[in-house]
Amino acid sequence: MNERYVHGYDPRENARLQDQAGTLVDLLHSDTSYPAGSVVLEAGCGVGAQTVTLAQRSPGARFMSIDISPDSIAQAKRRTDAAGLTNVQFRQADIFALPFDAESFDHVFACFVLEHLSRPVAALAILKGLLKPGGTITMIEGDHGSAYFHPASDDAQRAIHCLIELQQAAGGNALIGRQLYPLMVEAGFDAVHVSPRMVYVDSSKPALVEGFTKKTFTAMIEGVRESALAAGIVEPKAFDAGIRDLYRTAGTDGVFCYSFFKATGLG
Amino acid sequence: MNERYVHGYDPRENARLQDQAGTLVDLLHSDTSYPAGSVVLEAGCGVGAQTVTLAQRSPGARFMSIDISPDSIAQAKRRTDAAGLTNVQFRQADIFALPFDAESFDHVFACFVLEHLSRPVAALAILKGLLKPGGTITMIEGDHGSAYFHPASDDAQRAIHCLIELQQAAGGNALIGRQLYPLMVEAGFDAVHVSPRMVYVDSSKPALVEGFTKKTFTAMIEGVRESALAAGIVEPKAFDAGIRDLYRTAGTDGVFCYSFFKATGLG
Repeated sequence: MNERYVHGYDPRENARLQDQAGTLVDLLHSDTSYPAGSVVLEAGCGVGAQTVTLAQRSPGARFMSIDISPDSIAQAKRRTDAAGLTNVQFRQADIFALPFDAESFDHVFACFVLEHLSRPVAALAILKGLLKPGGTITMIEGDHGSAYFHPASDDAQRAIHCLIELQQAAGGNALIGRQLYPLMVEAGFDAVHVSPRMVYVDSSKPALVEGFTKKTFTAMIEGVRESALAAGIVEPKAFDAGIRDLYRTAGTDGVFCYSFFKATGLG
Repeated sequence: MNERYVHGYDPRENARLQDQAGTLVDLLHSDTSYPAGSVVLEAGCGVGAQTVTLAQRSPGARFMSIDISPDSIAQAKRRTDAAGLTNVQFRQADIFALPFDAESFDHVFACFVLEHLSRPVAALAILKGLLKPGGTITMIEGDHGSAYFHPASDDAQRAIHCLIELQQAAGGNALIGRQLYPLMVEAGFDAVHVSPRMVYVDSSKPALVEGFTKKTFTAMIEGVRESALAAGIVEPKAFDAGIRDLYRTAGTDGVFCYSFFKATGLG
């Protein structure tokens, strides 16, 4: 896999991923649980932000969680150990060269993974081949083009676009959420169903103002500042104005909207 | 009221409003009903696209539906008569000069009205004054900046932006959906609660592809072609390319997203 991970691997980024997972757990995961005895592949577990939730919600299922980064795997393992989970096994592996036999899994789950891959349909087809007959796949992705807010700001949209461009340059696709339906159909899944999960934040929801608008979304955009400047796609002043305007949407009269997309299909 | 109604009053536009109301009834209205005996002001009923639904869902409530246009009122009356409704009374009136005493209504309802007003907070404050103590207000608005789709298209976004600009030039605000929370707080309502109503359309939902992507949204944008050209804000070729790209999102691998916002508050 030749993609770089656009968000990097530093500790601040990991804190962001954990805040995000905490705030969004119900919205994204409340309708995912697997029957006792089933074997589930989590493809691209990263630092385990979703793994703990997944495994806790399906205590009778067994999870095989893989990631390409050994460091991320080590952190994910620490998190599931800290949570006292015994139904998760980790393995370092590339999604395009998985060490599993065909039809080894009852279900496959992946969250915020396809957005980083240059060949998402090929990855989906590989995952499909790992499913037993009747098995399901569940994919969750964001879509950075779904962000809009009040006060509206061209500078803020420009700063967001820096991440979209960097992710594209790294071989990924930050607008993949809206594309899950056609991608999964193209990969051959049946009964594909996509449901949007819109995060709406106004100042009557202070936990989301902090946990999502500021610490998840704006922090994520802020996190690509150096890369965006190094790539020459934005001037420092314009980028910083955009970040200020994103924080401005967390004010008393501000509003922030973003959508995730959750897709399920039959293998 | 010195605003022009950006969508005009021609028959094709009325057909569009009725298609829209049919497709979106459940999404927008399923959680609105009023107790028997209550008296409800519908402010800005237009051609009655929402009036029939409102009155059918609350058969024991009495509705006073007002609009500034006598022609629209006449059409709305024909529709409620055709539906056999007897709990709706119509009256031609300007929202900024309403012929009602203070605290005359138990509830106020308005749908797709604030977007056309240059002083939305003033209108909300007037409506607040008409509510009895403990009465509620319900406002529903779209937000044309919430539209995104696959395949993405700058031409399509440009065509959408023509409607946003025309509505602004006419004194309105096509991005008002996201602003309902701060506007209602500013107008003095208590317990303001906003819930987004996202319309997600892929080709597994053919009724929405036809009823929303094509006949509601794209038809609405197409409907401002002559005004946009007359205003000199777009070239014919660019506008037509945008419309083609919007129809393209109704294809087998296309996806279309749009959000409405529904706000409630206490007077």
